[in-house]
Amino acid sequence: MNNRLLKALLRQPVDRTPVWIMRQAGRYLPEYRKIRAEAGDFMTLCSTPELACEVTLQPLRRFNLDAAILFSDILTIPDAMGLGLYFSEGEGPKFKKTIDNANDVKKLIIPDPADKLAYVADAVSLIRKELNGKVPLIGFAGSPWTLATYMVEGGSSKTFAKIKGMLFEDPASAHTLMSKLADSVAHYLNAQIEAGAQAVMIFDSWGGALSTSHYKTFSLAYMQQIVDQLIREKDGEKIPVILFTKGGGMWLPEIANTGCDAVGLDWCVDIGKARQQIGGKVALQGNMDPAIMATNPEVIKQEVSRILADFGHGNGHIYNLGHGITPNITPDNVAALVDAVHDISAQYHV
Amino acid sequence: MNNRLLKALLRQPVDRTPVWIMRQAGRYLPEYRKIRAEAGDFMTLCSTPELACEVTLQPLRRFNLDAAILFSDILTIPDAMGLGLYFSEGEGPKFKKTIDNANDVKKLIIPDPADKLAYVADAVSLIRKELNGKVPLIGFAGSPWTLATYMVEGGSSKTFAKIKGMLFEDPASAHTLMSKLADSVAHYLNAQIEAGAQAVMIFDSWGGALSTSHYKTFSLAYMQQIVDQLIREKDGEKIPVILFTKGGGMWLPEIANTGCDAVGLDWCVDIGKARQQIGGKVALQGNMDPAIMATNPEVIKQEVSRILADFGHGNGHIYNLGHGITPNITPDNVAALVDAVHDISAQYHV
Repeated sequence: MNNRLLKALLRQPVDRTPVWIMRQAGRYLPEYRKIRAEAGDFMTLCSTPELACEVTLQPLRRFNLDAAILFSDILTIPDAMGLGLYFSEGEGPKFKKTIDNANDVKKLIIPDPADKLAYVADAVSLIRKELNGKVPLIGFAGSPWTLATYMVEGGSSKTFAKIKGMLFEDPASAHTLMSKLADSVAHYLNAQIEAGAQAVMIFDSWGGALSTSHYKTFSLAYMQQIVDQLIREKDGEKIPVILFTKGGGMWLPEIANTGCDAVGLDWCVDIGKARQQIGGKVALQGNMDPAIMATNPEVIKQEVSRILADFGHGNGHIYNLGHGITPNITPDNVAALVDAVHDISAQYHV
Repeated sequence: MNNRLLKALLRQPVDRTPVWIMRQAGRYLPEYRKIRAEAGDFMTLCSTPELACEVTLQPLRRFNLDAAILFSDILTIPDAMGLGLYFSEGEGPKFKKTIDNANDVKKLIIPDPADKLAYVADAVSLIRKELNGKVPLIGFAGSPWTLATYMVEGGSSKTFAKIKGMLFEDPASAHTLMSKLADSVAHYLNAQIEAGAQAVMIFDSWGGALSTSHYKTFSLAYMQQIVDQLIREKDGEKIPVILFTKGGGMWLPEIANTGCDAVGLDWCVDIGKARQQIGGKVALQGNMDPAIMATNPEVIKQEVSRILADFGHGNGHIYNLGHGITPNITPDNVAALVDAVHDISAQYHV
């Protein structure tokens, strides 16, 4: 097996910096768009293990990536809680029911991953089988705070007015909500690990919308609650945990202190400075500006060089973008990125 | 004159922490909505000195604010450059012409503030006269990077794909564009100062979308170019300069090193930590989460207490939100905020 990813996540020596791409299975690939059109509906893709497996594997057939990541959505958990997830064209995810008050929070039931979320573990098992040891498989979930924003707002938001109203006006309910979500995520990720996920990542996409004090209280504390419950070793192999807060560059030391193995960095962060701050404690994953993917192979190579040089010699770097790849990217540029990381990084691992 | 604002910006002793609110003249006020409806068009409000003066003064009639800020828009400069600014309902600002290539950048002419922007200086003079010494008047402009995003994208953007493409693929043109904008902003702010603005603020609303390296090269360096050209003293009075990068919490030391007098903080920043980092060099303005304004007076008071306590005793704090006030706020909550800042801050100035 190509186990660069797992080694790098544990800050062990590798021959090349491993690379994978957030949303590597996605709309920029024509073969993804074809399957997506045939399935008709995004949730059908996620909830049909054969389709989820197929789209997970698509980018690996094209590019020399060092990891697969489960094709799914962070909102499967609130969907399994009964909120009725659907996707409206051009508007992103929506929920039929929202969490409006203390009573709604009280009634929420932590989903059993073996019940309504069984399709996720089934997809993980199938992908592991199909990967056949080629590269490791990453499982993932959303952070409690990020999930809560969608559940309370009913979809995407720019100002998070409703969920922030809850944090300020009914903090007790907000804490109950986050705690239920943390336990749900922990069970869900453990089910992915039991089914074969070899590393797991928690996406805190909206942590950067919070004040420092609220970030620590309502987001980071509940990622900690998850990390504390995760299976960290299986069949003699460590299961590394990656935490990623978009917009969290000010809080890297606190994130690294949760006991996670790696911290995802968005593109705003100076990776060299981040390594000085927390590189002795965790691996770093990131952090190229996704906008660069729309330029050309020459510019992509330059940026790869710069980021690899900023990280410098030694272990503990997993190359990635600082956020998901966008649908407008040509696959050729992705190939250029992946190859550039492998070619240029060799010098930093001698 | 109530000169708490100017004293606090220069880190001199005051009896109460001064407070003003970004977008304090705006849609949350019924009297603003009335004038806005009568004017028909947002730009008519900005470009008619009597109307700009009237809406600037409206919040001061209701609330015990320590400053007025010119009612205008950051996009007056690209409009004066001939790009044809207009506002489409629900979609924000748009330009008829965009900056697409090196030739477009080359052709851009730095506007003479006495020509197409004369309405701004006229508004400033009129507001100073009408204020009659009640509180100081703040002038403002957008940062070169922030202005450039609108000029290249043609309006608001989520990914900044086109302008970032220019930064990566034609950095020489991007530098020329930023430099022309820096000179335009410097002339424009100096014209506001000559007309009577007693402090000036530069809004870098989109600096937080950049990598650290691009932020320094394409945003901060050009705010520096402006600061270096500004009139810093007039009629024996210092003219303080405030720099505000939304999402710039990782770069506070670099911002403070430009030679500005004060740094605006968004709500994500821990103001106590920011004071430790840069409080010996600059004043700090901010930084309450605007979402709190939608709650109630009790919660607002608690947050005011917390932020004032986090800043602590002594000089150099101007209370504000961490971003503009939103249209859904009731004026009663604004009154509660302003009064709470004055009441609670007294203990920190003895």
